[in-house]
Amino acid sequence: MRTGRTRQVLASRWSRGGALRHPDELIVEEPLAIHLDGALVATTMRTPGHDFELAVGFCHAEGLLAGIAVRGVRYCATGSAVDTEFNVVTVETGGLAPTPRPRLGTVGSSCGVCGRVAIDELCARLAPVDAPLFPLETLAAAPDAVREAQALFTLTGGVHAAAVLAPDGRVLLVREDIGRHNAVDKVVGRLLLDGALPVHDMALFVSGRASFELVQKAWAAGFAAIVAVSAPSALAVDTARAGNLTLAGFARDGRMNIYVEQEQS
Amino acid sequence: MRTGRTRQVLASRWSRGGALRHPDELIVEEPLAIHLDGALVATTMRTPGHDFELAVGFCHAEGLLAGIAVRGVRYCATGSAVDTEFNVVTVETGGLAPTPRPRLGTVGSSCGVCGRVAIDELCARLAPVDAPLFPLETLAAAPDAVREAQALFTLTGGVHAAAVLAPDGRVLLVREDIGRHNAVDKVVGRLLLDGALPVHDMALFVSGRASFELVQKAWAAGFAAIVAVSAPSALAVDTARAGNLTLAGFARDGRMNIYVEQEQS
Repeated sequence: MRTGRTRQVLASRWSRGGALRHPDELIVEEPLAIHLDGALVATTMRTPGHDFELAVGFCHAEGLLAGIAVRGVRYCATGSAVDTEFNVVTVETGGLAPTPRPRLGTVGSSCGVCGRVAIDELCARLAPVDAPLFPLETLAAAPDAVREAQALFTLTGGVHAAAVLAPDGRVLLVREDIGRHNAVDKVVGRLLLDGALPVHDMALFVSGRASFELVQKAWAAGFAAIVAVSAPSALAVDTARAGNLTLAGFARDGRMNIYVEQEQS
Repeated sequence: MRTGRTRQVLASRWSRGGALRHPDELIVEEPLAIHLDGALVATTMRTPGHDFELAVGFCHAEGLLAGIAVRGVRYCATGSAVDTEFNVVTVETGGLAPTPRPRLGTVGSSCGVCGRVAIDELCARLAPVDAPLFPLETLAAAPDAVREAQALFTLTGGVHAAAVLAPDGRVLLVREDIGRHNAVDKVVGRLLLDGALPVHDMALFVSGRASFELVQKAWAAGFAAIVAVSAPSALAVDTARAGNLTLAGFARDGRMNIYVEQEQS
């Protein structure tokens, strides 16, 4: 049984005046174990759907698919319970992918014990983005442009979105997930499966804040810019600078803050 | 050199009318490697500060400190670089803590490959909360009560908060972090170091959404209730039901949705 992406529960709308029972649509959160050529890479809590994209996008951001073609992606049941069948995904490269280092810790952190070390590690495997400057007007208009495609958000009010923006403002791809990093992995995974990476003339939109991890993923995919609805972290700014991505935050009502502006070579 | 919690950068406030350079305060994000009796348990991206609380709270939520006293917590440099010295913390129990299972994946997920399995695992090690019903008015008033104590949020607009609420509405403890789960770990870690766990007559406030992981942490600490400013996930509702915690979401302007109400024994 494949799990749905939302589930209805009865909730009480409470105010000082009293409480009223009503049905409420909640976002589904389930673990997904991601394997690469049989080895467990990570387990992430995600909203079911686009799981193959998520698995591929995650492996890509971790640098596990550099120059290696994905031969296939499939669900694989490890237990006897029917409802766990769609919570394990294997990405197959025919044994070409490097064995993932056993990592204790955050999904996608890829870091040493210092932010500068983490950025140095990225610089060692990723070239700075070399792309035409992405139009700032398009970045500022992104939240409104993406909003109408956020179907799960409209239903639940509790889910993040990531989207691919073309320079002319078209929203080419939207993915939603309870985890912002998952939404980005789903977007990047789709691009990879479509043979569209790196995407130097596109920008990445994220619905929440911009952390180190999200800028890392955007850089690995080759995005020219990343625009977030909320604040970036200090480390995210340093990372965008190292990767030569334009980084904008607090994009709301046609305004935004630009923290890093791409340099043209 | 201990890292600050915020850092000033120059940003451009952009609108169609033009752009204006101004100083902007950003939240700091740095990795923290958490060790328990010498073994690496997890690496998490966090805002520096209250690192001992974070380390202890994380180990507690993972069930690694059940019935075991914390003898000490200390920073330990593993490299020669001075600025990584405060990014590694060791929790010491004198070797009494269980060896953490090497986990590939999300910090704090503690899960199998299915949400129901994850809840079953929690039920195996945690008794349902048995506490007096927490006043609903206090839950609904929490966002306003906590808001004025969110000093880092006021500065940066990009940081989460967790807080301990007394039944009479007093805010007993507030911690802020770029990661919601870290803010909760810091709160629980402080309570543990103060010998105040379990906290059966208190509620936990979180500034964002309520995921499985946050309800797990609240349950492990013995909170009677958890109130979130945004939506819970479907799995969070199931977990609160299993743990017998009141779970409220969308707490705004004195109103909220109640998804689970504690049952009295």
